[in-house]
Amino acid sequence: MRAKREANVTETNRQLKLKSRPQGLLAPGDLQLAEAPLPSLSDGQALARVKYLSVDPTMRVWMAADSYLPAVAIGEVMRAFGFAEVLESRHKEFKKGDKVVGLTGLQDYCVIDAVDKRGSFQKVPPIPFLSDTAFLGVLGVTGITAYFGMMDIAKPQKGETLVVSAAAGATGSIAGQIGKIHGCRVVGIAGGAEHCKWLTDGLGFDAAVDYKQPDWKEKLTAATPKGVDIDYENVGGEIMRAVIDRMNLHGRVVLCGFISGYTKAAPEEVSLGLIIVKRLRVEGFLILDYVSRYLEAATQLGKWKMFGKLKDRETIVEGLEKAPDAINMLFTGGNIGKLIVKV
Amino acid sequence: MRAKREANVTETNRQLKLKSRPQGLLAPGDLQLAEAPLPSLSDGQALARVKYLSVDPTMRVWMAADSYLPAVAIGEVMRAFGFAEVLESRHKEFKKGDKVVGLTGLQDYCVIDAVDKRGSFQKVPPIPFLSDTAFLGVLGVTGITAYFGMMDIAKPQKGETLVVSAAAGATGSIAGQIGKIHGCRVVGIAGGAEHCKWLTDGLGFDAAVDYKQPDWKEKLTAATPKGVDIDYENVGGEIMRAVIDRMNLHGRVVLCGFISGYTKAAPEEVSLGLIIVKRLRVEGFLILDYVSRYLEAATQLGKWKMFGKLKDRETIVEGLEKAPDAINMLFTGGNIGKLIVKV
Repeated sequence: MRAKREANVTETNRQLKLKSRPQGLLAPGDLQLAEAPLPSLSDGQALARVKYLSVDPTMRVWMAADSYLPAVAIGEVMRAFGFAEVLESRHKEFKKGDKVVGLTGLQDYCVIDAVDKRGSFQKVPPIPFLSDTAFLGVLGVTGITAYFGMMDIAKPQKGETLVVSAAAGATGSIAGQIGKIHGCRVVGIAGGAEHCKWLTDGLGFDAAVDYKQPDWKEKLTAATPKGVDIDYENVGGEIMRAVIDRMNLHGRVVLCGFISGYTKAAPEEVSLGLIIVKRLRVEGFLILDYVSRYLEAATQLGKWKMFGKLKDRETIVEGLEKAPDAINMLFTGGNIGKLIVKV
Repeated sequence: MRAKREANVTETNRQLKLKSRPQGLLAPGDLQLAEAPLPSLSDGQALARVKYLSVDPTMRVWMAADSYLPAVAIGEVMRAFGFAEVLESRHKEFKKGDKVVGLTGLQDYCVIDAVDKRGSFQKVPPIPFLSDTAFLGVLGVTGITAYFGMMDIAKPQKGETLVVSAAAGATGSIAGQIGKIHGCRVVGIAGGAEHCKWLTDGLGFDAAVDYKQPDWKEKLTAATPKGVDIDYENVGGEIMRAVIDRMNLHGRVVLCGFISGYTKAAPEEVSLGLIIVKRLRVEGFLILDYVSRYLEAATQLGKWKMFGKLKDRETIVEGLEKAPDAINMLFTGGNIGKLIVKV
């Protein structure tokens, strides 16, 4: 039933399974490494070797409770986006050697089902100037999130002031650069001198505010002399409140995420009074709604990258077993750019 | 310097002045009645007799703290919209007998300044089928608020489900009827059988939910079988949460007010998680921004009223000295339709 395995294929599949729902940061054992036999393929399925895993804040949401997707069940392989290569195929759309991105899960091998209900596996075209990991970052879930958040929700206009929180992260760094492409004054909020230096010197942001400095609110005020028209919000909490304090009337809050709230039990909220007094539009979005337009996004992001208008950076952690630490790194500000686990 | 007074003009001006900022509902003495001499006019000013006062939830906001307008200062005459008639004029735009609406304040007489910085006094045209009080209600601040909230923020589409909270109030009752005019299924939330009966039998709402009944959330669910596309929100708190629970993806929350929060010290907030998971757009607005389009609104509202598509109702309280009780009535659900004090 199964073709002969290649020499470098192991006979077991390491998997990180959700054992308990984390309180705060992930504790050792919330995700547990287990070994399973390599899955056997049924007609119409394909087996793929996971090469890279995308480490995203939303994974912490999936571990906690039902949200826009059902929570990962206890005992289930942890859900994650990944980049994989097809090893063996009885699937009509994928053949051996195809490179794919999709919801691989935190494991060495994944099975692509005959009927892929979520349409989650996409073949990746061979593009010379793009690395495999670009399909998880700038052209992947985080880049595409930034694209639609900016193009469809923020709709940046020349001369407006855009503030991006978690600006040195995978989504924030792209969102800010899209703001620059559209002629905005772009101010990034990030943690630490290295992160901030990358934003201004590496990506051309007009200013960067280091929230780990005690005077960061004054710095934010100084960096936004004409107030703030767009808040591309990734963080929530105190940082969001400070940005909203600086917002102009009729400002737009693009609510991409609120990472400061994901490790807290209490719900994160925004003041109704401020929304009225400042006549704000606070809008949430999810890239799930844009599946039919991913190609548009990837094509545009790819062009910008090719012409040097978009720069990206990666923090790569080696080893599947390090994935839980990598997830925590998102919440402690450890990474710059896209955080990836090399399996 | 002053023309001879008419016989029915008193020599004193009763005024309700803010003595202390209320905690919760207004306590006796928060607004204190005082008598002042009739103001003497300078060149360019006009003196008007206040006939009707508009009693609006936003007055409680003005009493508490700076918001979209500065708070009323302690000792100052309480700010209020009113309908007045010019008694005496040295103003080039107003003559004796003119009827005006504007920020008269809670008093018997008001002065219209030569340079009316806020442009707050408008002459009222004589329209046979409209009562004087209509210029405070359906064609006044509350009707115009409903107009712009629905037409510019909600943009109702045929077949959508609109839920209006405080639906038997001055703004909610107009907002709901504008939804009906645009082909929406309209569900009102109000307190008590009489209020609810007026919404369905009087105004043609598709359903009304009495939040004073213990099973109101089940009733709301039953009344919104296709979920909720638009929340015209006047109340906040538990009612807003229940409506958001019923909202469809990409729903719009028109944040007109949150009366349940105005008498509380803690800020009223909305969950960021729900905004993202449901991809909501939560938008605040104030009619201050629409001054240049008031005529458009009043003309359209007047037409709808003339053709029987808009019905309005008033609760009239007699006597300036009853204004503090009238303000409290807004927060205890005592009024149906526009609440007005006849001076």
